[in-house]
Amino acid sequence: MPASPQRVVADLKKLRELTATAEGSQRLAWTPKWVEAREWFKTTFEGVPVEIETDPAGNLWVTLPGRSTDRVVLGSHLDSVPNGGWLDGALGVIAGAEVLRALHRDGVDLPVSVSVVDWADEEGARFGRSLFGSGAVSGTLEVDQIRGFRDRNGVTLEEAVRAHGVHLETILEAGRILPSIKASAELHIEQGPVLEAAGLRLAALHGILGVERSMVKLRGQAAHAGATPIPMRRDTTLAAARMAVEIRDLGLKHDAFSTIGVWRVHPAVPTAVNGRTEFSVDMRHLDRGVLESMVAGLREIVARVAAEERCEAELETLWSIAPIAFDPDLVRFAADAVEARSGVRQIMPSGPMHDSAEMARAGVPTVMMFVPSIRGLSHTHIEDTAEADLELGVAAFDDLVRRMLPWAAER
Amino acid sequence: MPASPQRVVADLKKLRELTATAEGSQRLAWTPKWVEAREWFKTTFEGVPVEIETDPAGNLWVTLPGRSTDRVVLGSHLDSVPNGGWLDGALGVIAGAEVLRALHRDGVDLPVSVSVVDWADEEGARFGRSLFGSGAVSGTLEVDQIRGFRDRNGVTLEEAVRAHGVHLETILEAGRILPSIKASAELHIEQGPVLEAAGLRLAALHGILGVERSMVKLRGQAAHAGATPIPMRRDTTLAAARMAVEIRDLGLKHDAFSTIGVWRVHPAVPTAVNGRTEFSVDMRHLDRGVLESMVAGLREIVARVAAEERCEAELETLWSIAPIAFDPDLVRFAADAVEARSGVRQIMPSGPMHDSAEMARAGVPTVMMFVPSIRGLSHTHIEDTAEADLELGVAAFDDLVRRMLPWAAER
Repeated sequence: MPASPQRVVADLKKLRELTATAEGSQRLAWTPKWVEAREWFKTTFEGVPVEIETDPAGNLWVTLPGRSTDRVVLGSHLDSVPNGGWLDGALGVIAGAEVLRALHRDGVDLPVSVSVVDWADEEGARFGRSLFGSGAVSGTLEVDQIRGFRDRNGVTLEEAVRAHGVHLETILEAGRILPSIKASAELHIEQGPVLEAAGLRLAALHGILGVERSMVKLRGQAAHAGATPIPMRRDTTLAAARMAVEIRDLGLKHDAFSTIGVWRVHPAVPTAVNGRTEFSVDMRHLDRGVLESMVAGLREIVARVAAEERCEAELETLWSIAPIAFDPDLVRFAADAVEARSGVRQIMPSGPMHDSAEMARAGVPTVMMFVPSIRGLSHTHIEDTAEADLELGVAAFDDLVRRMLPWAAER
Repeated sequence: MPASPQRVVADLKKLRELTATAEGSQRLAWTPKWVEAREWFKTTFEGVPVEIETDPAGNLWVTLPGRSTDRVVLGSHLDSVPNGGWLDGALGVIAGAEVLRALHRDGVDLPVSVSVVDWADEEGARFGRSLFGSGAVSGTLEVDQIRGFRDRNGVTLEEAVRAHGVHLETILEAGRILPSIKASAELHIEQGPVLEAAGLRLAALHGILGVERSMVKLRGQAAHAGATPIPMRRDTTLAAARMAVEIRDLGLKHDAFSTIGVWRVHPAVPTAVNGRTEFSVDMRHLDRGVLESMVAGLREIVARVAAEERCEAELETLWSIAPIAFDPDLVRFAADAVEARSGVRQIMPSGPMHDSAEMARAGVPTVMMFVPSIRGLSHTHIEDTAEADLELGVAAFDDLVRRMLPWAAER
């Protein structure tokens, strides 16, 4: 008997009862509600012969041993942003748990072990470092850089994690598990409107978009709003506005994402032209070559418009991450399951980052599945997915995992 | 012997020595440096039979009595913004003082009295209410509204002015002087780049631009930068950017001023589309009809672009002031003096507000003159005007005042 989609939905609701207020989920990593969520989560394995342990990075591993210590990992995260949704992260962990229990219930002769992992602090909502636990396992976590990160109350990340038994000196030892991981899978909500708009209920993911994130800083000349005629101005806000419109067109032209988020002006009073304006540009695409073209396009737009508006421009790279491709075999398995369950072979990339990116980056064959998000909303208490879609996702994920096991055993 | 332009420049430099730091002028109203400036200013009338008094609004009046208690007023302000320039306001007061002394030196038989006034707190830099003293005389000061205004340190305007002998209960009694004022004139720096760019050294002003100031508030939908494709967004920042470009074109089309100053976005992070954006629009023109057309144009732009970008828009009026026309006779006198001294009959409006606006609004025949500002800069320590231009301005202002006296006597 396969995994019970109804049990997954029921468990998600229980978790919400335990850890959400009217404002939304409060499972912020390294806080009591997060610990409570994990304690409850452990109780969902009663009667199942699992090994439960927390690694040096604070990741919670629940393992059903198979014939080999090699393992397939089903992972996501129980932590949420403050006032977050009930599904972001929790769906993947709780669906993984039910698949694990179903494998045990069905008495499947496991060729490899199966681990459900609740990655620690995926969101990075408190200290600004997302993919904390999975980054420690993959080895991308820059320990010295994050040591001094502080939350709003001045508590350092180092102090906060130490209170949960995590010591930055030994955190990378969490990576010792890596050689045993033969494959990894994650079920997640889309957090975007694409599936809903297309009337689709399920998707296999073939990768995670690369990101090029920059800050554009413009310097012109502050001037009195009533004394400097428009043609004589060096107006950085108007230069930024023209750039913003062109940067959107650049994204559209490449069928990519381009987003202006931060936007700061100075002196920011109604009676003055702004002598300084800066704004962030976030560009994403699955193809590295397209991303490079977009960066070149951004440089061209900024240089040309700044010159036309007689402003000085500086382009600072904030973050740059290459696109991540998932394993072709696993993508095929996922697509087969999606097609069998939903009738449509939908394959798409993820724009948002996920712990699966760290697995893939560490060389682990990895794949993900998405269920739709109603109105595309996430990181809010109104984040939701139709129960029927959640259930379809669990069923397809169960299909996927059962097909991964023999494949992983042969690697 | 006419007023001495050299004396005016020398006095301005003395005032700068007394009240400026390396960061600029520190004659913030209702502070010790401002009081010091006024005390020094009074000493510049030694040997001249003037009456000096401070009115219930804190305005400092220096009057050379003539045959009548009717008077011509030469006024501007000694107060400055923090780190301000050496000329903004001070030029008009100190030039007025020298013209008054010259009238005395020359033994001119004055048909009316001549008063130099240092208007209190023209800048409003500390409490946000500009034209404080002149507004009290004209009667436009809303006493109950400003009572609770506080500075950055929490000091109320009421407390601050009381320490200088000004009581809000009696402040409007300053208006008692109004019936005696038959005409008013002010020499000021342009604070903009128009004269310099045209190679002009002097201008007569025919009025002050009307202002329509609004806040545009946009609501769309916050969304993940990597999960919501561009065509599916309701991106308020992009809507605002398109509006900003069109609002500048609107200003250019009407040969007017239009300025985007404030610009706020939410949630203002690099990884999200902004669900809320708001920005200020300041529009100025000398013609009331043109201003009305611009307001209609702004409404059209905001409504159309918001609809195209699927955002909701709200347009809130922040401030609205009708254009102010100066007295046609006095404008002609000023233009004659400008032409005689500089060779060019330059007549233009002022974009920035001045105390003269309050005189004109109160029905006093009023006029102003401008000298150029180097690079159009003001409200900064690098504000400057060529000494030769300052001197030319003083000479023309002296011409103007001498022609105003008999004219005022006949009213």
